[in-house]
Amino acid sequence: MKLYDFLPSGNGYKVRLALAWLEIPYELVEVDILTGGTRTPEFLALNPNGRIPVLELDDGTCLAESNAILYYVAADSLLFPSDRLEQARVLQWMFFEQYSHEPFIATSRFLLHYREQTPEVVADLARRRQPGLAALSVMERHLEGRAFFVGDAFSLADIALYAYTHVAPEGGFALDDYPRVRAWLERVRLQPRHVTIDAGEPLLSSRAQ
Amino acid sequence: MKLYDFLPSGNGYKVRLALAWLEIPYELVEVDILTGGTRTPEFLALNPNGRIPVLELDDGTCLAESNAILYYVAADSLLFPSDRLEQARVLQWMFFEQYSHEPFIATSRFLLHYREQTPEVVADLARRRQPGLAALSVMERHLEGRAFFVGDAFSLADIALYAYTHVAPEGGFALDDYPRVRAWLERVRLQPRHVTIDAGEPLLSSRAQ
Repeated sequence: MKLYDFLPSGNGYKVRLALAWLEIPYELVEVDILTGGTRTPEFLALNPNGRIPVLELDDGTCLAESNAILYYVAADSLLFPSDRLEQARVLQWMFFEQYSHEPFIATSRFLLHYREQTPEVVADLARRRQPGLAALSVMERHLEGRAFFVGDAFSLADIALYAYTHVAPEGGFALDDYPRVRAWLERVRLQPRHVTIDAGEPLLSSRAQ
Repeated sequence: MKLYDFLPSGNGYKVRLALAWLEIPYELVEVDILTGGTRTPEFLALNPNGRIPVLELDDGTCLAESNAILYYVAADSLLFPSDRLEQARVLQWMFFEQYSHEPFIATSRFLLHYREQTPEVVADLARRRQPGLAALSVMERHLEGRAFFVGDAFSLADIALYAYTHVAPEGGFALDDYPRVRAWLERVRLQPRHVTIDAGEPLLSSRAQ
Protein backbone atom coordinates (compact mmCIF):
# COMPACT_ATOMS: atom_id res chain seq x y z
CA MET A 1 0.00 0.00 0.00
CA LYS A 2 1.04 3.59 -0.62
CA LEU A 3 0.09 6.46 1.67
CA TYR A 4 0.10 9.89 0.03
CA ASP A 5 0.66 12.21 2.92
CA PHE A 6 2.11 15.47 4.25
CA LEU A 7 4.01 14.76 7.47
CA PRO A 8 2.76 17.76 9.53
CA SER A 9 -0.85 16.77 8.79
CA GLY A 10 -2.74 15.30 11.71
CA ASN A 11 -5.18 13.71 9.27
CA GLY A 12 -2.33 11.81 7.66
CA TYR A 13 -0.78 11.11 11.06
CA LYS A 14 -3.92 9.23 12.15
CA VAL A 15 -3.32 6.72 9.40
CA ARG A 16 0.42 6.45 10.20
CA LEU A 17 -0.41 5.85 13.87
CA ALA A 18 -2.92 3.11 13.03
CA LEU A 19 -0.69 1.39 10.47
CA ALA A 20 2.23 1.37 12.93
CA TRP A 21 0.04 -0.02 15.76
CA LEU A 22 -1.28 -2.68 13.37
CA GLU A 23 2.24 -3.43 12.04
CA ILE A 24 1.05 -2.99 8.46
CA PRO A 25 3.92 -2.02 6.13
CA TYR A 26 3.36 0.77 3.61
CA GLU A 27 5.19 3.12 1.35
CA LEU A 28 5.03 6.81 2.29
CA VAL A 29 4.75 9.24 -0.61
CA GLU A 30 5.15 12.79 0.62
CA VAL A 31 3.03 15.44 -1.06
CA ASP A 32 3.75 19.11 -0.34
CA ILE A 33 0.33 20.67 0.16
CA LEU A 34 1.94 24.10 0.59
CA THR A 35 3.21 24.25 -3.00
CA GLY A 36 0.08 22.90 -4.72
CA GLY A 37 0.99 19.22 -4.53
CA THR A 38 -2.66 18.25 -4.00
CA ARG A 39 -3.86 20.39 -6.94
CA THR A 40 -1.92 18.70 -9.75
CA PRO A 41 -3.84 16.63 -12.33
CA GLU A 42 -1.91 13.57 -11.12
CA PHE A 43 -2.99 14.03 -7.52
CA LEU A 44 -6.59 14.94 -8.42
CA ALA A 45 -6.74 11.63 -10.32
CA LEU A 46 -6.07 9.93 -6.97
CA ASN A 47 -8.51 12.10 -4.99
CA PRO A 48 -10.76 14.52 -6.89
CA ASN A 49 -11.36 16.34 -3.59
CA GLY A 50 -7.68 17.35 -3.59
CA ARG A 51 -6.74 16.40 -0.04
CA ILE A 52 -4.26 14.14 1.67
CA PRO A 53 -4.16 11.50 3.03
CA VAL A 54 -4.92 9.08 0.21
CA LEU A 55 -4.36 5.35 0.56
CA GLU A 56 -3.53 3.58 -2.70
CA LEU A 57 -4.00 -0.17 -2.63
CA ASP A 58 -1.74 -2.54 -4.55
CA ASP A 59 -4.25 -2.74 -7.42
CA GLY A 60 -4.26 1.06 -7.79
CA THR A 61 -7.59 1.61 -6.02
CA CYS A 62 -7.55 4.83 -4.00
CA LEU A 63 -9.34 5.68 -0.79
CA ALA A 64 -9.64 9.20 0.67
CA GLU A 65 -10.78 10.72 3.97
CA SER A 66 -8.53 9.91 6.92
CA ASN A 67 -11.26 8.37 9.05
CA ALA A 68 -12.56 6.17 6.22
CA ILE A 69 -8.99 4.95 5.67
CA LEU A 70 -8.77 4.17 9.39
CA TYR A 71 -11.91 2.05 9.09
CA TYR A 72 -10.55 0.25 6.04
CA VAL A 73 -7.24 -0.71 7.65
CA ALA A 74 -8.56 -1.45 11.14
CA ALA A 75 -12.20 -2.57 11.04
CA ASP A 76 -11.22 -6.19 11.69
CA SER A 77 -8.69 -5.36 14.41
CA LEU A 78 -8.84 -4.60 18.12
CA LEU A 79 -8.95 -0.90 17.20
CA PHE A 80 -12.61 -1.31 16.19
CA PRO A 81 -15.04 -2.97 18.64
CA SER A 82 -17.18 -5.92 17.62
CA ASP A 83 -20.40 -4.66 19.23
CA ARG A 84 -22.58 -2.60 16.87
CA LEU A 85 -23.36 0.13 19.40
CA GLU A 86 -19.70 0.49 20.35
CA GLN A 87 -18.77 0.61 16.66
CA ALA A 88 -21.27 3.43 16.19
CA ARG A 89 -19.79 5.23 19.21
CA VAL A 90 -16.31 5.02 17.70
CA LEU A 91 -17.73 6.53 14.52
CA GLN A 92 -19.59 9.15 16.58
CA TRP A 93 -16.27 10.43 17.94
CA MET A 94 -14.66 10.26 14.51
CA PHE A 95 -17.45 12.41 13.04
CA PHE A 96 -17.18 14.72 16.07
CA GLU A 97 -13.47 15.03 15.28
CA GLN A 98 -14.05 16.02 11.66
CA TYR A 99 -16.98 18.37 12.30
CA SER A 100 -16.50 19.91 15.75
CA HIS A 101 -12.74 19.63 16.37
CA GLU A 102 -10.56 19.60 13.24
CA PRO A 103 -11.97 22.72 11.50
CA PHE A 104 -11.13 24.77 14.60
CA ILE A 105 -8.11 23.22 16.32
CA ALA A 106 -6.29 21.86 13.27
CA THR A 107 -7.11 24.78 11.02
CA SER A 108 -5.93 27.25 13.67
CA ARG A 109 -2.58 25.42 13.79
CA PHE A 110 -2.36 25.60 10.00
CA LEU A 111 -3.24 29.31 9.89
CA LEU A 112 -0.74 30.16 12.64
CA HIS A 113 2.13 28.23 11.09
CA TYR A 114 1.69 28.51 7.35
CA ARG A 115 -0.13 31.77 6.70
CA GLU A 116 0.96 35.36 6.93
CA GLN A 117 -0.85 36.94 9.90
CA THR A 118 -2.93 39.42 7.89
CA PRO A 119 -6.01 41.02 9.56
CA GLU A 120 -8.19 38.49 7.68
CA VAL A 121 -6.21 35.53 9.03
CA VAL A 122 -6.23 36.98 12.55
CA ALA A 123 -10.02 37.41 12.33
CA ASP A 124 -10.37 33.88 10.99
CA LEU A 125 -8.35 32.55 13.93
CA ALA A 126 -10.55 34.48 16.36
CA ARG A 127 -13.70 32.93 14.88
CA ARG A 128 -12.27 29.44 15.36
CA ARG A 129 -11.32 29.93 19.01
CA GLN A 130 -14.65 29.42 20.79
CA PRO A 131 -15.68 26.26 18.87
CA GLY A 132 -12.19 24.81 19.46
CA LEU A 133 -12.46 25.40 23.21
CA ALA A 134 -15.95 23.88 23.17
CA ALA A 135 -14.62 20.71 21.52
CA LEU A 136 -11.88 20.38 24.15
CA SER A 137 -14.48 20.86 26.91
CA VAL A 138 -16.69 18.12 25.48
CA MET A 139 -13.66 15.80 25.46
CA GLU A 140 -12.63 16.77 29.01
CA ARG A 141 -16.12 16.07 30.33
CA HIS A 142 -16.42 12.76 28.47
CA LEU A 143 -13.09 11.51 29.87
CA GLU A 144 -14.29 11.74 33.48
CA GLY A 145 -13.85 8.21 34.79
CA ARG A 146 -12.76 6.92 31.39
CA ALA A 147 -9.34 5.78 30.20
CA PHE A 148 -10.25 5.92 26.51
CA PHE A 149 -13.10 7.37 24.46
CA VAL A 150 -15.15 4.22 23.85
CA GLY A 151 -15.63 1.16 26.05
CA ASP A 152 -12.42 1.56 28.04
CA ALA A 153 -10.23 0.19 25.23
CA PHE A 154 -7.89 2.00 22.86
CA SER A 155 -9.71 2.41 19.53
CA LEU A 156 -9.86 4.35 16.28
CA ALA A 157 -11.74 7.05 18.20
CA ASP A 158 -8.63 7.73 20.29
CA ILE A 159 -6.35 7.69 17.25
CA ALA A 160 -8.58 10.11 15.35
CA LEU A 161 -8.80 12.53 18.27
CA TYR A 162 -5.16 12.23 19.35
CA ALA A 163 -3.78 13.41 16.02
CA TYR A 164 -4.72 17.08 16.32
CA THR A 165 -5.31 17.26 20.09
CA HIS A 166 -1.69 16.47 20.95
CA VAL A 167 -0.57 19.44 18.82
CA ALA A 168 -3.46 21.72 19.89
CA PRO A 169 -1.00 24.10 21.65
CA GLU A 170 0.59 24.74 18.22
CA GLY A 171 -2.80 26.17 17.22
CA GLY A 172 -2.98 28.39 20.28
CA PHE A 173 -5.03 25.95 22.35
CA ALA A 174 -3.09 25.41 25.58
CA LEU A 175 -4.24 22.28 27.39
CA ASP A 176 -3.63 23.49 30.98
CA ASP A 177 -7.35 23.57 31.73
CA TYR A 178 -7.93 20.04 30.42
CA PRO A 179 -6.14 17.67 32.82
CA ARG A 180 -8.12 14.58 31.76
CA VAL A 181 -7.35 15.29 28.11
CA ARG A 182 -3.63 15.58 29.00
CA ALA A 183 -3.68 12.27 30.92
CA TRP A 184 -5.49 10.58 28.03
CA LEU A 185 -2.93 11.96 25.53
CA GLU A 186 -0.20 10.34 27.63
CA ARG A 187 -2.07 7.01 27.67
CA VAL A 188 -2.32 7.13 23.87
CA ARG A 189 1.37 8.08 23.55
CA LEU A 190 2.31 5.03 25.62
CA GLN A 191 0.55 2.63 23.26
CA PRO A 192 2.87 0.10 21.61
CA ARG A 193 4.65 1.09 18.41
CA HIS A 194 3.80 4.77 18.85
CA VAL A 195 5.22 7.06 16.18
CA THR A 196 5.56 10.83 16.35
CA ILE A 197 3.84 13.12 13.87
CA ASP A 198 7.03 14.38 12.24
CA ALA A 199 8.75 11.02 12.05
CA GLY A 200 6.01 8.86 10.68
CA GLU A 201 8.39 5.91 10.75
CA PRO A 202 6.64 3.67 8.28
CA LEU A 203 8.01 0.14 8.29
CA LEU A 204 8.86 0.61 4.64
CA SER A 205 9.41 4.18 3.50
CA SER A 206 10.24 5.87 0.23
CA ARG A 207 10.08 9.60 0.23
CA ALA A 208 9.04 10.87 -3.18
CA GLN A 209 10.03 14.36 -4.32
CA MET B 1 -36.33 4.28 19.79
CA LYS B 2 -36.66 8.05 20.15
CA LEU B 3 -35.20 10.49 17.65
CA TYR B 4 -34.54 13.99 19.02
CA ASP B 5 -34.68 16.14 15.94
CA PHE B 6 -35.48 19.50 14.35
CA LEU B 7 -37.51 18.93 11.18
CA PRO B 8 -35.73 21.46 8.90
CA SER B 9 -32.37 19.85 9.75
CA GLY B 10 -30.80 17.82 6.97
CA ASN B 11 -28.71 16.00 9.54
CA GLY B 12 -31.86 14.80 11.25
CA TYR B 13 -33.53 14.14 7.92
CA LYS B 14 -30.83 11.62 6.99
CA VAL B 15 -31.86 9.50 9.94
CA ARG B 16 -35.59 9.88 9.14
CA LEU B 17 -34.92 8.85 5.52
CA ALA B 18 -32.99 5.76 6.59
CA LEU B 19 -35.49 4.71 9.28
CA ALA B 20 -38.38 5.05 6.79
CA TRP B 21 -36.51 3.05 4.13
CA LEU B 22 -35.70 0.38 6.71
CA GLU B 23 -39.29 0.43 8.06
CA ILE B 24 -38.03 0.89 11.60
CA PRO B 25 -40.62 2.58 13.83
CA TYR B 26 -39.52 5.40 16.12
CA GLU B 27 -40.83 8.24 18.19
CA LEU B 28 -39.97 11.73 16.95
CA VAL B 29 -39.22 14.29 19.66
CA GLU B 30 -38.94 17.74 18.16
CA VAL B 31 -36.34 20.06 19.65
CA ASP B 32 -36.35 23.72 18.64
CA ILE B 33 -32.69 24.55 18.04
CA LEU B 34 -33.63 28.19 17.33
CA THR B 35 -34.80 28.84 20.88
CA GLY B 36 -32.00 27.07 22.73
CA GLY B 37 -33.59 23.63 22.82
CA THR B 38 -30.21 21.94 22.41
CA ARG B 39 -28.60 24.04 25.18
CA THR B 40 -30.81 22.98 28.09
CA PRO B 41 -29.30 20.80 30.85
CA GLU B 42 -31.80 18.09 29.86
CA PHE B 43 -30.67 18.04 26.24
CA LEU B 44 -26.95 18.32 27.11
CA ALA B 45 -27.41 15.20 29.24
CA LEU B 46 -28.44 13.40 26.04
CA ASN B 47 -25.63 14.91 23.91
CA PRO B 48 -22.93 16.98 25.64
CA ASN B 49 -22.01 18.39 22.21
CA GLY B 50 -25.45 20.08 22.10
CA ARG B 51 -26.59 19.05 18.64
CA ILE B 52 -29.46 17.18 17.09
CA PRO B 53 -30.09 14.51 15.93
CA VAL B 54 -29.78 12.23 18.92
CA LEU B 55 -31.04 8.65 18.88
CA GLU B 56 -32.18 7.33 22.25
CA LEU B 57 -32.43 3.57 22.48
CA ASP B 58 -35.06 1.84 24.56
CA ASP B 59 -32.63 1.36 27.45
CA GLY B 60 -31.90 5.12 27.54
CA THR B 61 -28.55 4.89 25.74
CA CYS B 62 -27.99 7.89 23.48
CA LEU B 63 -26.07 8.12 20.24
CA ALA B 64 -25.12 11.40 18.51
CA GLU B 65 -23.72 12.42 15.10
CA SER B 66 -26.12 11.82 12.22
CA ASN B 67 -23.76 9.62 10.22
CA ALA B 68 -22.87 7.45 13.23
CA ILE B 69 -26.61 6.99 13.86
CA LEU B 70 -27.01 5.95 10.19
CA TYR B 71 -24.33 3.31 10.69
CA TYR B 72 -25.99 2.05 13.86
CA VAL B 73 -29.43 1.62 12.32
CA ALA B 74 -28.31 0.35 8.89
CA ALA B 75 -24.95 -1.43 9.11
CA ASP B 76 -26.61 -4.83 8.75
CA SER B 77 -28.95 -3.75 5.94
CA LEU B 78 -28.68 -3.32 2.18
CA LEU B 79 -27.87 0.34 2.82
CA PHE B 80 -24.35 -0.67 3.88
CA PRO B 81 -22.30 -2.94 1.59
CA SER B 82 -20.75 -6.17 2.86
CA ASP B 83 -17.37 -5.68 1.17
CA ARG B 84 -14.82 -3.89 3.38
CA LEU B 85 -13.55 -1.58 0.64
CA GLU B 86 -17.07 -0.60 -0.35
CA GLN B 87 -17.93 -0.01 3.29
CA ALA B 88 -14.93 2.31 3.56
CA ARG B 89 -16.06 4.12 0.41
CA VAL B 90 -19.51 4.70 1.90
CA LEU B 91 -17.80 6.16 4.97
CA GLN B 92 -15.48 8.19 2.71
CA TRP B 93 -18.51 9.98 1.24
CA MET B 94 -20.09 10.38 4.67
CA PHE B 95 -16.93 12.07 5.98
CA PHE B 96 -16.77 14.14 2.78
CA GLU B 97 -20.33 15.22 3.51
CA GLN B 98 -19.57 16.36 7.04
CA TYR B 99 -16.24 18.05 6.26
CA SER B 100 -16.46 19.38 2.68
CA HIS B 101 -20.20 19.77 2.07
CA GLU B 102 -22.31 20.40 5.17
CA PRO B 103 -20.32 23.33 6.66
CA PHE B 104 -20.79 25.25 3.42
CA ILE B 105 -24.05 24.18 1.80
CA ALA B 106 -26.07 23.42 4.93
CA THR B 107 -24.69 26.31 6.94
CA SER B 108 -25.42 28.75 4.10
CA ARG B 109 -29.04 27.58 4.10
CA PHE B 110 -29.20 28.10 7.86
CA LEU B 111 -27.62 31.57 7.68
CA LEU B 112 -29.93 32.67 4.86
CA HIS B 113 -33.10 31.44 6.53
CA TYR B 114 -32.60 31.93 10.23
CA ARG B 115 -30.19 34.83 10.63
CA GLU B 116 -30.57 38.56 10.13
CA GLN B 117 -28.51 39.51 7.07
CA THR B 118 -25.98 41.69 8.89
CA PRO B 119 -22.68 42.55 7.13
CA GLU B 120 -21.00 39.80 9.21
CA VAL B 121 -23.52 37.18 8.08
CA VAL B 122 -23.24 38.31 4.47
CA ALA B 123 -19.44 38.02 4.67
CA ASP B 124 -19.78 34.61 6.29
CA LEU B 125 -22.03 33.45 3.44
CA ALA B 126 -19.51 34.73 0.89
CA ARG B 127 -16.71 32.73 2.51
CA ARG B 128 -18.78 29.55 2.31
CA ARG B 129 -19.64 29.92 -1.38
CA GLN B 130 -16.48 28.65 -3.10
CA PRO B 131 -16.06 25.52 -0.93
CA GLY B 132 -19.76 24.72 -1.44
CA LEU B 133 -19.43 24.94 -5.21
CA ALA B 134 -16.29 22.79 -5.03
CA ALA B 135 -18.19 20.08 -3.15
CA LEU B 136 -20.95 20.05 -5.76
CA SER B 137 -18.34 19.81 -8.53
CA VAL B 138 -16.68 16.84 -6.87
CA MET B 139 -20.10 15.14 -6.70
CA GLU B 140 -20.95 15.99 -10.32
CA ARG B 141 -17.66 14.55 -11.56
CA HIS B 142 -18.00 11.41 -9.45
CA LEU B 143 -21.51 10.71 -10.77
CA GLU B 144 -20.31 10.42 -14.37
CA GLY B 145 -21.43 6.96 -15.40
CA ARG B 146 -22.72 6.17 -11.93
CA ALA B 147 -26.29 5.80 -10.67
CA PHE B 148 -25.35 6.05 -6.98
CA PHE B 149 -22.25 7.07 -5.04
CA VAL B 150 -20.87 3.66 -4.17
CA GLY B 151 -20.99 0.40 -6.10
CA ASP B 152 -24.08 1.24 -8.15
CA ALA B 153 -26.45 0.54 -5.27
CA PHE B 154 -28.38 2.95 -3.07
CA SER B 155 -26.50 3.27 0.23
CA LEU B 156 -25.95 5.38 3.32
CA ALA B 157 -23.61 7.52 1.20
CA ASP B 158 -26.55 8.61 -0.94
CA ILE B 159 -28.76 9.25 2.06
CA ALA B 160 -26.08 11.33 3.80
CA LEU B 161 -25.44 13.44 0.69
CA TYR B 162 -29.07 13.75 -0.40
CA ALA B 163 -30.18 15.44 2.81
CA TYR B 164 -28.55 18.82 2.24
CA THR B 165 -27.96 18.58 -1.52
CA HIS B 166 -31.67 18.45 -2.35
CA VAL B 167 -32.18 21.72 -0.47
CA ALA B 168 -28.93 23.32 -1.69
CA PRO B 169 -30.90 25.99 -3.63
CA GLU B 170 -32.32 27.18 -0.28
CA GLY B 171 -28.71 28.01 0.63
CA GLY B 172 -28.15 29.89 -2.62
CA PHE B 173 -26.60 26.96 -4.46
CA ALA B 174 -28.63 26.54 -7.65
CA LEU B 175 -28.12 23.12 -9.19
CA ASP B 176 -28.51 24.14 -12.88
CA ASP B 177 -24.84 23.46 -13.60
CA TYR B 178 -24.96 20.00 -12.03
CA PRO B 179 -27.17 17.82 -14.24
CA ARG B 180 -25.81 14.50 -12.93
CA VAL B 181 -26.41 15.63 -9.36
CA ARG B 182 -30.01 16.56 -10.29
CA ALA B 183 -30.60 13.16 -11.95
CA TRP B 184 -29.14 11.40 -8.92
CA LEU B 185 -31.38 13.43 -6.56
CA GLU B 186 -34.36 12.20 -8.55
CA ARG B 187 -33.16 8.58 -8.29
CA VAL B 188 -32.89 8.95 -4.53
CA ARG B 189 -36.31 10.61 -4.32
CA LEU B 190 -37.84 7.63 -6.14
CA GLN B 191 -36.56 5.15 -3.57
CA PRO B 192 -39.30 3.24 -1.76
CA ARG B 193 -40.84 4.80 1.35
CA HIS B 194 -39.31 8.20 0.62
CA VAL B 195 -40.24 10.93 3.08
CA THR B 196 -39.84 14.66 2.65
CA ILE B 197 -37.69 16.79 4.95
CA ASP B 198 -40.58 18.76 6.43
CA ALA B 199 -42.92 15.83 6.89
CA GLY B 200 -40.62 13.31 8.47
CA GLU B 201 -43.53 10.91 8.61
CA PRO B 202 -42.29 8.60 11.30
CA LEU B 203 -44.29 5.42 11.59
CA LEU B 204 -44.97 6.37 15.19
CA SER B 205 -44.77 10.04 16.04
CA SER B 206 -45.15 12.09 19.19
CA ARG B 207 -44.27 15.72 18.89
CA ALA B 208 -42.93 17.04 22.17
CA GLN B 209 -43.18 20.75 22.98
